[in-house]
Amino acid sequence: MQFEIKESDFHVEKLNEARIPSPMEGERFVDDEERILYATNVREMQSFISEGKTVPSFEQAGPRSKIYFDPSKLRCGIVTCGGLCPGINDVIRAIVLSLHYSYDVHTVWGFRYGLEGLAPSYKHEPLELTPRMVADFHQKGGSILGSSRGPQKIEEICDTLERMHIGILFAIGGDGTLRAVQAIVQEVKKRDLKISVVAVPKTIDNDIAFVDRSFGFMTAVSEAARVIYGAHSEATGARNGIGLVKLMGRHSGFIAAHATLANNDVNFCLIPEVPFSLPVFLDIIRERIHKRGHAVIVVAEGAGQDLIENAGGTDPSGNVRLGDIGTFLKDKITEDFSKHKLDLVLKYIDPSYIIRSLSANTDDSAFCLLLGHNAVHAAMSGRTDMVVGFWKNYYIHIPTSLAVSRRKEVSPDSRLWRDVLLCIGQPENLLEK
Amino acid sequence: MQFEIKESDFHVEKLNEARIPSPMEGERFVDDEERILYATNVREMQSFISEGKTVPSFEQAGPRSKIYFDPSKLRCGIVTCGGLCPGINDVIRAIVLSLHYSYDVHTVWGFRYGLEGLAPSYKHEPLELTPRMVADFHQKGGSILGSSRGPQKIEEICDTLERMHIGILFAIGGDGTLRAVQAIVQEVKKRDLKISVVAVPKTIDNDIAFVDRSFGFMTAVSEAARVIYGAHSEATGARNGIGLVKLMGRHSGFIAAHATLANNDVNFCLIPEVPFSLPVFLDIIRERIHKRGHAVIVVAEGAGQDLIENAGGTDPSGNVRLGDIGTFLKDKITEDFSKHKLDLVLKYIDPSYIIRSLSANTDDSAFCLLLGHNAVHAAMSGRTDMVVGFWKNYYIHIPTSLAVSRRKEVSPDSRLWRDVLLCIGQPENLLEK
Amino acid sequence: MQFEIKESDFHVEKLNEARIPSPMEGERFVDDEERILYATNVREMQSFISEGKTVPSFEQAGPRSKIYFDPSKLRCGIVTCGGLCPGINDVIRAIVLSLHYSYDVHTVWGFRYGLEGLAPSYKHEPLELTPRMVADFHQKGGSILGSSRGPQKIEEICDTLERMHIGILFAIGGDGTLRAVQAIVQEVKKRDLKISVVAVPKTIDNDIAFVDRSFGFMTAVSEAARVIYGAHSEATGARNGIGLVKLMGRHSGFIAAHATLANNDVNFCLIPEVPFSLPVFLDIIRERIHKRGHAVIVVAEGAGQDLIENAGGTDPSGNVRLGDIGTFLKDKITEDFSKHKLDLVLKYIDPSYIIRSLSANTDDSAFCLLLGHNAVHAAMSGRTDMVVGFWKNYYIHIPTSLAVSRRKEVSPDSRLWRDVLLCIGQPENLLEK
Amino acid sequence: MQFEIKESDFHVEKLNEARIPSPMEGERFVDDEERILYATNVREMQSFISEGKTVPSFEQAGPRSKIYFDPSKLRCGIVTCGGLCPGINDVIRAIVLSLHYSYDVHTVWGFRYGLEGLAPSYKHEPLELTPRMVADFHQKGGSILGSSRGPQKIEEICDTLERMHIGILFAIGGDGTLRAVQAIVQEVKKRDLKISVVAVPKTIDNDIAFVDRSFGFMTAVSEAARVIYGAHSEATGARNGIGLVKLMGRHSGFIAAHATLANNDVNFCLIPEVPFSLPVFLDIIRERIHKRGHAVIVVAEGAGQDLIENAGGTDPSGNVRLGDIGTFLKDKITEDFSKHKLDLVLKYIDPSYIIRSLSANTDDSAFCLLLGHNAVHAAMSGRTDMVVGFWKNYYIHIPTSLAVSRRKEVSPDSRLWRDVLLCIGQPENLLEK
Repeated sequence: MQFEIKESDFHVEKLNEARIPSPMEGERFVDDEERILYATNVREMQSFISEGKTVPSFEQAGPRSKIYFDPSKLRCGIVTCGGLCPGINDVIRAIVLSLHYSYDVHTVWGFRYGLEGLAPSYKHEPLELTPRMVADFHQKGGSILGSSRGPQKIEEICDTLERMHIGILFAIGGDGTLRAVQAIVQEVKKRDLKISVVAVPKTIDNDIAFVDRSFGFMTAVSEAARVIYGAHSEATGARNGIGLVKLMGRHSGFIAAHATLANNDVNFCLIPEVPFSLPVFLDIIRERIHKRGHAVIVVAEGAGQDLIENAGGTDPSGNVRLGDIGTFLKDKITEDFSKHKLDLVLKYIDPSYIIRSLSANTDDSAFCLLLGHNAVHAAMSGRTDMVVGFWKNYYIHIPTSLAVSRRKEVSPDSRLWRDVLLCIGQPENLLEK
Repeated sequence: MQFEIKESDFHVEKLNEARIPSPMEGERFVDDEERILYATNVREMQSFISEGKTVPSFEQAGPRSKIYFDPSKLRCGIVTCGGLCPGINDVIRAIVLSLHYSYDVHTVWGFRYGLEGLAPSYKHEPLELTPRMVADFHQKGGSILGSSRGPQKIEEICDTLERMHIGILFAIGGDGTLRAVQAIVQEVKKRDLKISVVAVPKTIDNDIAFVDRSFGFMTAVSEAARVIYGAHSEATGARNGIGLVKLMGRHSGFIAAHATLANNDVNFCLIPEVPFSLPVFLDIIRERIHKRGHAVIVVAEGAGQDLIENAGGTDPSGNVRLGDIGTFLKDKITEDFSKHKLDLVLKYIDPSYIIRSLSANTDDSAFCLLLGHNAVHAAMSGRTDMVVGFWKNYYIHIPTSLAVSRRKEVSPDSRLWRDVLLCIGQPENLLEK
Repeated sequence: MQFEIKESDFHVEKLNEARIPSPMEGERFVDDEERILYATNVREMQSFISEGKTVPSFEQAGPRSKIYFDPSKLRCGIVTCGGLCPGINDVIRAIVLSLHYSYDVHTVWGFRYGLEGLAPSYKHEPLELTPRMVADFHQKGGSILGSSRGPQKIEEICDTLERMHIGILFAIGGDGTLRAVQAIVQEVKKRDLKISVVAVPKTIDNDIAFVDRSFGFMTAVSEAARVIYGAHSEATGARNGIGLVKLMGRHSGFIAAHATLANNDVNFCLIPEVPFSLPVFLDIIRERIHKRGHAVIVVAEGAGQDLIENAGGTDPSGNVRLGDIGTFLKDKITEDFSKHKLDLVLKYIDPSYIIRSLSANTDDSAFCLLLGHNAVHAAMSGRTDMVVGFWKNYYIHIPTSLAVSRRKEVSPDSRLWRDVLLCIGQPENLLEK
Repeated sequence: MQFEIKESDFHVEKLNEARIPSPMEGERFVDDEERILYATNVREMQSFISEGKTVPSFEQAGPRSKIYFDPSKLRCGIVTCGGLCPGINDVIRAIVLSLHYSYDVHTVWGFRYGLEGLAPSYKHEPLELTPRMVADFHQKGGSILGSSRGPQKIEEICDTLERMHIGILFAIGGDGTLRAVQAIVQEVKKRDLKISVVAVPKTIDNDIAFVDRSFGFMTAVSEAARVIYGAHSEATGARNGIGLVKLMGRHSGFIAAHATLANNDVNFCLIPEVPFSLPVFLDIIRERIHKRGHAVIVVAEGAGQDLIENAGGTDPSGNVRLGDIGTFLKDKITEDFSKHKLDLVLKYIDPSYIIRSLSANTDDSAFCLLLGHNAVHAAMSGRTDMVVGFWKNYYIHIPTSLAVSRRKEVSPDSRLWRDVLLCIGQPENLLEK
């Protein structure tokens, strides 16, 4: 990432000074000076110091001794946007339980079907969320509230928040949602309201900047590895067998890379960050089949987009529509083998919805619990326009503007990618032979 | 099934009288008079009795006190044909272990890539299978030997069997394989050879006649239910959400029916045995979405073939190529909602290879173990031209001709189908409203 | 089983003639003449015929065209008794859904904590069970209603049934519960009430007579196999390693036998039905360790009770308290190795509660669904004093008296046990060398 | 941790200068100046800076451009010590594959049964490990090499290393093993040998200092959470039900704390780092049962050791023998309820070996792969007397002396413990009411 990092970018906004003592008796509160270093290695740190700059750092998340909102009067809302991702219900549940048990906040509305639920025209009745109702949410995949893609009029959303006397809006969503958060915050300011908007970033692709790991990602990698194992069985179960698996990853190949490391049967891993030449790749595949009789290929959905005529346009969330690299490769490999008069048994697997709709695994379940708790702590303290992140094993606060300023990617020079190449023996350069 | 059942159809062929004492000391052997009733209910039984016929019955499988083959000289072969199915490796393993430990037969060849492995032109070297090598086979999906579709020249196959001095050929495969077994047996007879051919029927669709359950089926149903659960999450996670899952079942809807019972989220189940009208179905779907906001549809791959223009032709195994009912329904529902100006979020899931490539679950693993053992017992006793089946909780012998004489189907009048309809509240008749 | 089987034992009692047309429109009803043969093999059948007796058969379960209870007035109750078993919640759910959707019966009370819930002195409020409430029950282990051991006064139970105007009581429980059912039926008759009592037999040990398979059993076997796999890792992970696993099975070794078949790592399987001599067994263990360096032993909790000084007495349900064969063997093997100056690393695993508390696997979940449905069909038709069973792949009705008349056991001569011995190479006779 | 941190403690020893070019063509190597900050927060960092000290940092792991050992002559050994932990076989496999494919080192000996395998008196033949042999190791629990507890004579170990011309010894083990590593390194120096000893720290308790996460830990937490779910079913399935689960954690409560967060059914979590008073705890349990009717208690095996009369002594590895807190609590709670004339249904679960013997989950599998690779990179570069660690998402080198200098614990003031208390509502202080 060649962006400049400024300390001021790490500053989290507050609605106002928090003056109300927290109702959490006996708690060891986090004070605002507890900050987590952005830099993780010596060189980075020294480059800041040598330039006379303060080393940037994140606010550590956690309960504060003083809160901004009066629990007895506070009403909160939760909205979930975009595609499914394991753990959404865990986060909803954690927010409701933390509000209820740690802060004595008892009115929490769940808006239905994403931002639609905040736009009066859709007439979706919000759901009142109680501890009893959310108790078993974490065992379910999907989103209990329902989700939708695409923006709604910011004015209407703010009208709804005002009309329902919402003090905090928790938004669980990706890129587009974070941008909606920014717009809502602007409109809230313009109207001089005291509404906090705090996001828990949802991206199964794990591509949010300044977030080491996003919820659902580990669950997705686990299931992806399981699917790859099946592709390997299909590939080895036939002469000249190829198992081709398309995994999630529109712009960042984290799922493909991690699933490749987690499963020891992958022979080729293609990700958006590392371009490849089709002829070179086809040659290598034929060689592999010639030598070993089978191959397992993992391709992230955003890989090789330069090779296919793109469907073009954008979806309702404003995401670019990707060309289907999976069926593209399937067709090209089939053609190529046919041209070379080679037998081929290619099995193509696209497990997308199977993975997205899973319930969170144990690890993600605990992770979502703490993301939700920390979102509540942050919002109760009056923070706004921020997302809850995870950095070097700490829960942190990230200003929304920083979180959307760039995308996290698998750098071809990173140890992650180098380790993938080493572990599967893939040539570094697939652009030329 | 409106076929006539004759007692003589149940007679299993033997190469010759078995005269060699079994090496299994102290075993309680099964004698040839232990037979399992074909009839399971009183009416069936009485209809035979009233007509003065002998009630048909199957030979019970199990070790015999006398065997035909001399273990010290015997060489065996194993071949796996057709598509993958959970448990193939378990069966291979069980055959090798039983030959080795129960009968002291130590030479077992694994032919590679289906019948290709028996056709010299492919030059696939057979693999010698030892107990040590197969020890952990049961933990793996796929087929360790590899598989292929399509027939090979029967003469070449028999040449190979002769050249390698194979006394028993174990064939693990479906319909096509059973027909190949019949042909090999004919050729073996013509050449006056003493080679036994015994099959373990492989059909993930569970559609072999006179076999209550085939291996891999329960594993397939389990995974199918898991996938349906995901489809339900997708359907409920969106407004006007539809989860559409295509499951295996070319001619018989057993997987779809059982997965529907095993999972409590299915709203509609379409199987090959029960025709439906597209306009009627589309109306019902729209009504359901209107009333409940979401729907989960399970469709067996062979359902509704009369509605789609068939790709036609046959695959290398001689199976009719099916039209893709999954994408057909997806397109038709999408069109229909668009025509009625209704929003729709349809997620289509086709988990086929993910399911086929699984390793067997516990239940199937034990089942495969005993199928393999019983195939060995049958073949060692000199039986040939038969398959090992499972009927009313007993392992049995079925003549190949009987097993291929008809296909097992989900009768629309059966309790199974009626229970499916009852449990999900699906209208009985989808042909007219 | 050396009991005499009489046709009259198979007769299921009815409260009275069923005259009300079933509300299930268009259903293909089961008529009372559809009966499933008790006999499964030719010899059995012929022995009845040759003695001039009618071949015994079970009534097939399923919806009847005429019902006895008026749905608009009917109130039902459900009670769960004894230890946990995977699938209890599935059965509760199925009963509620079937009553509601198939019969329009809307009042179903769940009694809390077993028969205690029917005894006024405990003051447990019954829970009203609605379709909405039970919707996700099947995903949970345990019993949503709670359970307890031990009988309560039959008069008090009947008082409660009368007071609450209960027409049908569904009882989910084991041996003790079936006897309670018989007693309640007697008292109901004495009072000339029209209350039906129908049981779904719950026995994780799978030891109910005339029931091929009881719910939860397959789930238990799966988990047991998983635990054995761990014992094998422990055994092979150490020099002279022994993995010793105690499994459920008070009087019948079905779980131990099936888990042994399902897992390929067991070397010795001890069950209640097959006695063994401790000195002989210890010798064999030492030999095995000497030759192979490790061993995996599976022991059913009821095995070897003659060898240990029994704790004696009975538990609140009237079950004999068993001596702890697991720790007994652990101690004896440890002593023996110490006496012979042999190193030993023995890991003892007792997974009982871990298994019992699981939620039902896919297979059991579908099975429980149909057990519940068929219990409802039976009771609605006016049948009483019966249990719903499963015989040769059919759901059937069994008179309670027949179900409690004997216990199902693993016969040492059965193919099941012979196959276990064959598959693991265990000597048949562990009483003498 | 109140230890002083000195920069010099972070210095990793090398046998000698590495002069041989790495055979890994085209790799982007890690240079020795790439170092990962020990400090993670601003305060820590500033305290070093303000004292004029260099901020301590770890060497980043990864392949070096220059290596010390000549691959064509190198022979390596692997040994696994102590109790089982998920992932051991993954690490073995990764080491073999990395040596073979990245460095062309083809002789790798696997020593059997821990350090015994290096002591000639035991006569354990070492196993030659090839890529083919280890290919599927990662799917197995346990240790393929076998393990043992306890030290062996250092001289004999070094004799064996010399005699077999071992250049690198990879040791997979815990505390005791790390100390053995130190002793071997001393003896190697004394003899002026050029043998590198590199450890991969194995501790299911996750209690190695300077290691954020050790392998097997996440798998253990997942399974622990599953077991707790069962305990919850048992507790809620009975009136006054208590589910009591003992988890691993001799000195550090990480598994108990994480499993509590991962599972939402725990009511009380007891760990070694936080003392409690038995009378206070019993009072709280009774209150909970009174109010809610059930309770789930998780206790780490090292908790409450001050309360029980300790068995005393040490095991062969030199670990203090712990008193059994699980059965102690079970007995005390039972007594207490009996004294107060309260009914109680307590189910005690001790899943230790079931957890330890699991195969690694996906997440741990990828983690072990990279631990193994990085151990190879480190050793090939001539580093010795070190362990491979994981710190803030980077693989790092830690001098053995630093790794054994202290134990990682759950600080009662840490966010981890505070979050546990918050999430389950456990009182902070269990020493007094």
